[in-house]
Amino acid sequence: MHATPHDLIPQVADLHDAALAARLQHLLDHKTKPLGSLGRIEGLARQIGLVLGSERPVLQQPQMVVFAGDHGLAARGVSAFPAEVTAQMVANFLGGGAAVSVLARQHGLALTVVDAGVASALPAHPGLVDAKVAPGTADCTQGPAMSAAQCEQALRAGADVVRGLQGNALLLGEMGIGNTSSASLLMARLSGQPLTDCVGRGTGLDRSGLVRKLAVLQEALHCHAEVREPLAVLAAFGGFEIAMMVGAILQAAAERRVIVVDGFIVSSAVLVAQALQPQVLQRCVFSHQSDESGHARMLAHLGAEAVLKLDLRLGEGSGAALAWPLLVSACHLLCDMASFEAAGVSTAGGGTAEPRA
Amino acid sequence: MHATPHDLIPQVADLHDAALAARLQHLLDHKTKPLGSLGRIEGLARQIGLVLGSERPVLQQPQMVVFAGDHGLAARGVSAFPAEVTAQMVANFLGGGAAVSVLARQHGLALTVVDAGVASALPAHPGLVDAKVAPGTADCTQGPAMSAAQCEQALRAGADVVRGLQGNALLLGEMGIGNTSSASLLMARLSGQPLTDCVGRGTGLDRSGLVRKLAVLQEALHCHAEVREPLAVLAAFGGFEIAMMVGAILQAAAERRVIVVDGFIVSSAVLVAQALQPQVLQRCVFSHQSDESGHARMLAHLGAEAVLKLDLRLGEGSGAALAWPLLVSACHLLCDMASFEAAGVSTAGGGTAEPRA
Repeated sequence: MHATPHDLIPQVADLHDAALAARLQHLLDHKTKPLGSLGRIEGLARQIGLVLGSERPVLQQPQMVVFAGDHGLAARGVSAFPAEVTAQMVANFLGGGAAVSVLARQHGLALTVVDAGVASALPAHPGLVDAKVAPGTADCTQGPAMSAAQCEQALRAGADVVRGLQGNALLLGEMGIGNTSSASLLMARLSGQPLTDCVGRGTGLDRSGLVRKLAVLQEALHCHAEVREPLAVLAAFGGFEIAMMVGAILQAAAERRVIVVDGFIVSSAVLVAQALQPQVLQRCVFSHQSDESGHARMLAHLGAEAVLKLDLRLGEGSGAALAWPLLVSACHLLCDMASFEAAGVSTAGGGTAEPRA
Repeated sequence: MHATPHDLIPQVADLHDAALAARLQHLLDHKTKPLGSLGRIEGLARQIGLVLGSERPVLQQPQMVVFAGDHGLAARGVSAFPAEVTAQMVANFLGGGAAVSVLARQHGLALTVVDAGVASALPAHPGLVDAKVAPGTADCTQGPAMSAAQCEQALRAGADVVRGLQGNALLLGEMGIGNTSSASLLMARLSGQPLTDCVGRGTGLDRSGLVRKLAVLQEALHCHAEVREPLAVLAAFGGFEIAMMVGAILQAAAERRVIVVDGFIVSSAVLVAQALQPQVLQRCVFSHQSDESGHARMLAHLGAEAVLKLDLRLGEGSGAALAWPLLVSACHLLCDMASFEAAGVSTAGGGTAEPRA
């Protein structure tokens, strides 16, 4: 990899603000409920308050962005589905028939699909951003999935997409036949865990398919045995949609957007992004723990706990969309619940707070 | 207990419909997603489809009903909060400042509060149903928490509330200082598990408070050592809000409404209801696994798996409300996602379905 241009990776500051954190905790502790009784929802409220820098955080104009790209590895039979499905599903996202389309409508999420590197030409559509780096990555068992220049182009394109978005929350999804393979390779190399702990059945491999996938990925790891630097690892294993998400995550983090992470593949982009700028994790809400073997370990490696555990393994941002109303709930509870004092409710131990007015 | 009047417990039929179940599974399997990749959401879609008897189930006019009552046991120091909080929180529910009020507004849930047996007189309010059986139950270490006649009155009142509700989904919540104690006693007696496995810290007891609570509950179990019949157990341990929920659950089940169960206390009402009519469980969605020690074991006893696990221990229906959008998502995905055929997306293994039109 060339030396990284100094403007490629934005600085992501530490959100540490002890005064705001204390105010948020005080507000939560004085709501009309037993201390801590809203569990993980209180943690979400604290986190979103800190990301948005407010004790009355309001999530506005949430944006679901689905990055799509094809993978040279797909030709090696690492997926249960043929590569043409990537482009077909992009059309389905835009046509409104995919899971993420349905869920985005339910929750009022603006849906943008980004062609990061789909193999075929895609017809223009108002909801489609053409940022195609190339028609699919190269086979990473033979060399890097993408060149350093392509990787840089993808990172910049991801940041550009985010710069143009309204609102203060970014939900990330992806589509790319073969991309659990890239995610597993990124995980194995960047987390140092054995490949077998990083690889699963993706969208539906059978036992022999899984054995084949493992062999191919082992080959890929050998091909890039010396690569360790995060951007070089990203270029080595791909894909374009993952690289573009790394750029999007870094930019969204620098802009202090709330970042809602979908499953295994989006998490692998976070893995790369936090290797470059560790504070991105402060902005990330991990929406669900995927049924994909390896995701639980990846979350543990990131020190993250997912909001939902529903055995999802679809991708597309479907898990992020399903978890979204819980983030909204966290903000509403923080902003709109009465305090013991305001509601004239007695506190634990029997002390009576005086009603206000 | 007197002989149960023959009209007190409605018949709850088996929803078994192999043809509809097969059609629902077929629809889910042909959506544009890998087989089973929406995990637990697919199970919710199947269940709701069967309860509503439709392959295109639509949840309509969801009703959140919060039953409130006081407990004679509260005077024995089994809760961290004083009993007056029950009435104060009812005012807070109706005033819009409680967690369940905030969440009901977020999700468009109609909110009804039922005075099942609050100790103090409550001012009239359009959102409040006065079904007070008595101003609190009796201390169940000294005799039954309620008489057989009161238990019957509560069951009938719960059914009446449900009969008057619009829509096809019932979300249940409760409020009652001391009611984790009743729930623990119901669980211990009806599930046969040791009391220590059924008792937790409620809304916030400390260690010595928990020891005191255990001793009191042990006393209550001894006081009613011979009581085994479900309605007699219910009358023995209370409370009015739980008995009214049992009536509501049985009626909602008989009417084939989707029943969204909140945490430990609502689950204890389900425990009683299913002991009378086992098929109520087919209609129940267990929204979350509470942080209250014992709830996980109660769910296991019922063979149920909760949708969320967020360490909630608030009650009020807050967990049911938080899970609600996931039920809506399940229906939307079942009704609105495209099939492989309609979207022209290739299936696993590479077969290409022809686009329709």
